[in-house]
Amino acid sequence: MANAVVSQSGGPTGVINASLTGVILEACKHTRIDNIFGAVHAVRGIVEEKFIDLRQISVSKLETVRRSPSSALGSSRDKPDEEYCQRILKVFEKWDIHYFYYIGGNDSANTCYIVNNMAEKSGYDLKAFHVPKTIDNDLLVTDHCPGYGTAAKFVACALMGDDLDNRALPGVKIDVIMGRHAGFLTAATALAKRRDDDGPHLIYMPERPIPMDKFIGDVDAVYKKYGRCVIAVSEGIGDTDGKTWAEKLAENAERDDHGNVQLSGTGALADFLAAEIKSKLKIKRVRADTFGYLQRSFAGLQSEVDAEEALACGRQAVLYSLKQDNGSVAMKRNGSGKDYGVEMFRTDLSTVAEKTKSVPEEFINAEGNGITDAFLEYAMPLAGKLPETEYLGTYPTVSKP
Amino acid sequence: MANAVVSQSGGPTGVINASLTGVILEACKHTRIDNIFGAVHAVRGIVEEKFIDLRQISVSKLETVRRSPSSALGSSRDKPDEEYCQRILKVFEKWDIHYFYYIGGNDSANTCYIVNNMAEKSGYDLKAFHVPKTIDNDLLVTDHCPGYGTAAKFVACALMGDDLDNRALPGVKIDVIMGRHAGFLTAATALAKRRDDDGPHLIYMPERPIPMDKFIGDVDAVYKKYGRCVIAVSEGIGDTDGKTWAEKLAENAERDDHGNVQLSGTGALADFLAAEIKSKLKIKRVRADTFGYLQRSFAGLQSEVDAEEALACGRQAVLYSLKQDNGSVAMKRNGSGKDYGVEMFRTDLSTVAEKTKSVPEEFINAEGNGITDAFLEYAMPLAGKLPETEYLGTYPTVSKP
Repeated sequence: MANAVVSQSGGPTGVINASLTGVILEACKHTRIDNIFGAVHAVRGIVEEKFIDLRQISVSKLETVRRSPSSALGSSRDKPDEEYCQRILKVFEKWDIHYFYYIGGNDSANTCYIVNNMAEKSGYDLKAFHVPKTIDNDLLVTDHCPGYGTAAKFVACALMGDDLDNRALPGVKIDVIMGRHAGFLTAATALAKRRDDDGPHLIYMPERPIPMDKFIGDVDAVYKKYGRCVIAVSEGIGDTDGKTWAEKLAENAERDDHGNVQLSGTGALADFLAAEIKSKLKIKRVRADTFGYLQRSFAGLQSEVDAEEALACGRQAVLYSLKQDNGSVAMKRNGSGKDYGVEMFRTDLSTVAEKTKSVPEEFINAEGNGITDAFLEYAMPLAGKLPETEYLGTYPTVSKP
Repeated sequence: MANAVVSQSGGPTGVINASLTGVILEACKHTRIDNIFGAVHAVRGIVEEKFIDLRQISVSKLETVRRSPSSALGSSRDKPDEEYCQRILKVFEKWDIHYFYYIGGNDSANTCYIVNNMAEKSGYDLKAFHVPKTIDNDLLVTDHCPGYGTAAKFVACALMGDDLDNRALPGVKIDVIMGRHAGFLTAATALAKRRDDDGPHLIYMPERPIPMDKFIGDVDAVYKKYGRCVIAVSEGIGDTDGKTWAEKLAENAERDDHGNVQLSGTGALADFLAAEIKSKLKIKRVRADTFGYLQRSFAGLQSEVDAEEALACGRQAVLYSLKQDNGSVAMKRNGSGKDYGVEMFRTDLSTVAEKTKSVPEEFINAEGNGITDAFLEYAMPLAGKLPETEYLGTYPTVSKP
């Protein structure tokens, strides 16, 4: 018998606690695992020896944990180097910890990888497993990543409402969505579309740099066609010169040297794009929202599929750790549409660590301003059931009776 | 028998379509009402004679309408003057419309009022009824306003998630909430609090101007106590000199005379406050979100109580119109806590038209940076059932076994 530690790292998601729940529930079932410690604030909690006894959590509390957004054990942005990992290993030895479950993105997989290599070298018996999470869906190997489906559901519900709002009071609306390098979440706004003329009418992802004149031209064309335009933009979109627009804004702000003018804040990109459209297209009603943290931590909103898969990934990490030494949990899709399902498999930590996945070419339209049906087929089962909506204002009008 | 027209005006809400549904369902029951027309884009649809035959909507579609956010008939920001209202009345005469149901805020009540007065003067038989809606909850007479409960639920769920996110990755988080003159919606973020140290830790409403040094001092105190701070701020908060901070920002931007620097955009206030905290308190992790339109139009999220009351208000408008000439539907609370309930009553259009309600003194704490228990008692039944959440990071840590 040996002790286990589980922890959560990086940016929170809507189902990272479902993965935590999966680890706890599965670990409790196996006699080879003694104490199940939760390290508070990720690796920092490990080196500071701040552990919670997770066996003592009541099932009722654990059920609430499962449904709560954000990271119930706290998180950390620490990126451990070799020395830091050495300290982790020392604590493992001291606390007789031989099972390590780390829920996080590619950085967390890397931490797992380093710690595991060190343990191997020093002959310390450690089972180190990474459980994937990210709203960006940018992990390699796995078909998709727990956390993405719930964030996709959030942005889809947001865009559904926003598009109806834009129908009611027409104009141009820009929504800036999380995603610095991968546009999966921004692409998911397309799940909001129900009718042919529904927004988002334009979708821009970091994978496809777009010069300002093309962007303005796109908006102009949609606005002329529908009398309105709803646009989803990744925070990481860039120009064709290789720089992101957010970087350019920050540079300009620094050049201006006004201490009081902040362009690096979260609202800056949205406001900048709105101003460009206003000034170049002379459209009066232009509004912009930056969705911010609501996308990753909104209470009471989970994709059921995502929550189930997240929990299953947590369970699998424990099951793998009873038979194998290390690895990352990944999912393979084994059906589409109504037959959607996944099977879990183990992949080497090195295949996931530090690497990122981009939106594949076949998911982005030729013009680079929208998505393809292949993407919809990919993303739809992940977001789960979405609300239906109705708009009456486009129904045929009647003549005087 | 005579025809009826129903329309929706002003900013959309999450349940304005429930009110529309109430009007349609009730109007269908009464033989004195013949056609039920929906005017597309509010008063503009009336003067342009753009009417939809609402009797032809299937019950299944109407059920989807009821649950859809935004204004299903479209909206308008037109503020009709006497001449505009004269045109409205002419269309009513032409189309034999003698029942007018207008769903909107205090401006819509005013339009109803003007049109009604004109009809009276010219001896035209018109039943003009206003159905209240606003996310700001700023209408007079009624205990609260349909639309508020759903928006309150949204911001509460958002703050619950955001506070957990802030626990996981501590720092200062600012959330800018809709409300230019009334702070009811910002106050509703307090519904997110479950534990003593839960955020929002500070809540600022337009009713209580706050100078920057007091604001910074408040944040400093909370941050020193908890190592983190979550702040909810109304977009309309002002300084003690009578100007709103947003106005001051806009003035500064104009003085700078940089065409490319936009400070009037939606993200500006949040970014400005974040910059102030960063520079004055030397806190590294400061983030700011502006919730924007998500608060008023988010698909799949309604307060059940709010949706039911909104529908009931629509029904009541029709019932009143069969017995009385004009008025606005209002609600009186007849129980609190678990015994919460409302009864409807009719109030004169003039009592609601053009007037606004502020958050009463007894709902704001002495310091002007939070709310009182009286507010919680007031708002809790309106938002309806909220999710429970759990955070484990503050549980007692264990010693080495």
